[in-house]
Amino acid sequence: MSGQTIGQQSIQFREPVFIISGASIVGKKEGEGPLGDAFDLVGEDPMFGTDSWEEAESTLQKETAGLAIAKAGLKNWQIRTIYAGDLLAQSVASSFGIADLGIPVYGLYGACSTMGEALSLGSMAVAAGYGEYVLAVTSSHFGSAEKEFRFPLSYGNQRPLSATWTVTGSGACVLGRQGGRARIMGVTTGKIIDYGLKDPQNMGACMAPAACDTIYQNFMDFDRMPEDYDKIVTGDLGKVGQQILWDLLAKKGYDIRKQHMDCGLKIYDGKTQDTHSGGSGCGCAATVFVSYILPKIESGEWERVLFVPTGALMSKVSFNEGQSVPGVAHAVVVETAGKGER
Amino acid sequence: MSGQTIGQQSIQFREPVFIISGASIVGKKEGEGPLGDAFDLVGEDPMFGTDSWEEAESTLQKETAGLAIAKAGLKNWQIRTIYAGDLLAQSVASSFGIADLGIPVYGLYGACSTMGEALSLGSMAVAAGYGEYVLAVTSSHFGSAEKEFRFPLSYGNQRPLSATWTVTGSGACVLGRQGGRARIMGVTTGKIIDYGLKDPQNMGACMAPAACDTIYQNFMDFDRMPEDYDKIVTGDLGKVGQQILWDLLAKKGYDIRKQHMDCGLKIYDGKTQDTHSGGSGCGCAATVFVSYILPKIESGEWERVLFVPTGALMSKVSFNEGQSVPGVAHAVVVETAGKGER
Repeated sequence: MSGQTIGQQSIQFREPVFIISGASIVGKKEGEGPLGDAFDLVGEDPMFGTDSWEEAESTLQKETAGLAIAKAGLKNWQIRTIYAGDLLAQSVASSFGIADLGIPVYGLYGACSTMGEALSLGSMAVAAGYGEYVLAVTSSHFGSAEKEFRFPLSYGNQRPLSATWTVTGSGACVLGRQGGRARIMGVTTGKIIDYGLKDPQNMGACMAPAACDTIYQNFMDFDRMPEDYDKIVTGDLGKVGQQILWDLLAKKGYDIRKQHMDCGLKIYDGKTQDTHSGGSGCGCAATVFVSYILPKIESGEWERVLFVPTGALMSKVSFNEGQSVPGVAHAVVVETAGKGER
Repeated sequence: MSGQTIGQQSIQFREPVFIISGASIVGKKEGEGPLGDAFDLVGEDPMFGTDSWEEAESTLQKETAGLAIAKAGLKNWQIRTIYAGDLLAQSVASSFGIADLGIPVYGLYGACSTMGEALSLGSMAVAAGYGEYVLAVTSSHFGSAEKEFRFPLSYGNQRPLSATWTVTGSGACVLGRQGGRARIMGVTTGKIIDYGLKDPQNMGACMAPAACDTIYQNFMDFDRMPEDYDKIVTGDLGKVGQQILWDLLAKKGYDIRKQHMDCGLKIYDGKTQDTHSGGSGCGCAATVFVSYILPKIESGEWERVLFVPTGALMSKVSFNEGQSVPGVAHAVVVETAGKGER
């Protein structure tokens, strides 16, 4: 046995799974934000040399995956499986990007929680001996996401202040049995939580209940308190969603304000970049994790982090048919490698 | 360790994972086909009591999942995780259906290969000790799929003979550590294979190269010949795709014509039901597996089956932008439980 189930929704690995490398590539706007210097590459061309937003995102994801593999000192054939997903209908950014790598692929859909899902399933596979190395990767692109979920860019619509800005970016991690300075110790799998909210321009509010549910369940399953984590990192709740998460957890008796950080509030400068409620998209949590959070874990500045990307489950069709926007959040426990249990 | 990697793309479990129960619910047309009596339920109302095709599919999937859990003699809370996916943009059939079950969910996207992916990841989780029971489920619906990929039904377009008919149906399996009469012994994870074909009305041709690649790799990894399987079952290649698969494997020196069966050619009566090249959709492979293949494995009529659902990776947008239709296929090795190794 490679891990044990603990509590209701979690798995604790018997041997840690290491994050051997991480790579992040972002667009120009993200490069101009507060984390600009932390990303591996900033693409000046929003089309990434292609003819469509979708191909641009595919290229972005493929380049990021390749960079993570190179940074791990590996060749493509040494990666046993890729766990990949994106926001687009039928996950076409992933299908067309990473196909060229010639590596077996499990396609995922968890909306903006996809990096949490990919790191979960990838680490579960490595812990079980299903491969020496696997890759977790996800992406989003402002142009392809606006076209997919809201309005074509050329329409020039106004955005409410509760709306988030989809990150153009891709993050990838190579996971393995040994070699990295950060380790995954366990995961908490999220339920789909639906409070009946219907506003896709306020996805933070739609996702906050799912984030609350998964974080609370992680505390229960691992028998931990907020202070047992140096950081509790959500994906893209933004300003509105963050406050709702704090309130929901306070009602359950937990104050996470000291530990909490939201990737969507970190990636842009809210004052100068006009991104309203913050960043969002699969690429938001993924690029902030790889560029900002992972180095702090590797250096030991943060010894234990709960990484909880959050996803809003909806489509154009479900919105047009008047459906609600349920949320889901998958949590991964990441620690500095080589430290004793605390 | 719970399993070992073998060859390039496969995993062999140290202890088998059992298929404890299977459930299938289909629409009226499928109920009138040759497998009509084998399905658990046939819905006479194509809307399944709802107001939209998407909600109909969600309801269908939820009912099927619930039925599989009940047939296993379990309650919802005993299922540790659901592995679920469907064909719709952002997998909304899955998001809105199974949310009500209150079970943690990993969302998947593998187009019509999704049942292969769900059984693979589900059995990998059970073999590793990540839960006593997990559920694999997928669905498709003719109405929602035509709207998503082709034309609204009311448009009344003509269909070429190479086109397939999307199955209205959902199949679900409960997997566990003990208790069933069929067992999963290993899996072969598929690569995305792109021969550059672009016709979404001929998806069998688009998927056949991926099916060939995964089946060939399974033979290599497990050191087997076609005759080591009683059946080699693809998902929805249809008439055109089946011939291409045979030809491609013949070029590699393998004749699988004696063992091969395609779910898409089994579910409808090609002569009387006007379904052209056969059935397709996530629900095609899933319902045929649960209703027709699984009972034959459980009874020992077929002692070892290679189940290889096939997916065509495309979206309306990727088609309109002139992209090709790559394929993917995930294989699962299923045997009669209690038989010795042969």
